[in-house]
Amino acid sequence: MKTQNRRTFVASAAALGVSAAATAMPIMEKKEKKILVHHALFWLKNPESKEDLAKLLAGLQTLRKIEAIKELHIGVPASTEKRDVVDTSYHASEVMFFDGLEDQKIYQDHAIHQKFIADCSHLWERVIVYDSIDS
Amino acid sequence: MKTQNRRTFVASAAALGVSAAATAMPIMEKKEKKILVHHALFWLKNPESKEDLAKLLAGLQTLRKIEAIKELHIGVPASTEKRDVVDTSYHASEVMFFDGLEDQKIYQDHAIHQKFIADCSHLWERVIVYDSIDS
Repeated sequence: MKTQNRRTFVASAAALGVSAAATAMPIMEKKEKKILVHHALFWLKNPESKEDLAKLLAGLQTLRKIEAIKELHIGVPASTEKRDVVDTSYHASEVMFFDGLEDQKIYQDHAIHQKFIADCSHLWERVIVYDSIDS
Repeated sequence: MKTQNRRTFVASAAALGVSAAATAMPIMEKKEKKILVHHALFWLKNPESKEDLAKLLAGLQTLRKIEAIKELHIGVPASTEKRDVVDTSYHASEVMFFDGLEDQKIYQDHAIHQKFIADCSHLWERVIVYDSIDS
């Protein structure tokens, strides 16, 4: 009986091992989720107007309320070292993370985003967007 | 004596209040820390070469070992909706977060970053960098 008990214990341990692996899978999947980075850069019509920049930055802040946005950084050019490859000509930047294409589309169509465009698009002369997905 | 005790209690509570505020300060400072977003976009010399893209992406992955990088996303153009403002002409993208200018400089000068440039710069024709800081 003692030997049999030991066998039962080993078999249970193996079963537990399988069970632990199965439990770990969703965590691994979560880690491997591909983030979509949406980066929009804005050039103002009136580059010298601090008021226009403030209006644009305030408009960008309203986007925080959109739940589909996982992370949002609203910024201005940083004073990093000057190099040929660094473009500091833009005036405002928004970097957003989404959990994939669908959430990015929800953001594009969202009423708060549409209101931002209606309220602020007269302020900018040019926008560039780079959408990239984790490789 | 009872009144005096109550006064002592109130005075202690005030002291505790000050102490709690002092303890909370570093957390507030941490929250308000400005993130520097460093975004580099790469255009390959041989846009059709899947091998060159793989080499570049592998080179970018080596940068993960640089401790000064707070967060890193290495990506390729996402298949978001086609719009005039969306530039999908690049081939690889790196988005890094730093805790400010100093950490970005540490990254620029880091041996691993320098090795990446030495090993991979022959692969790309053009690079654009946007450095922005939380406004």
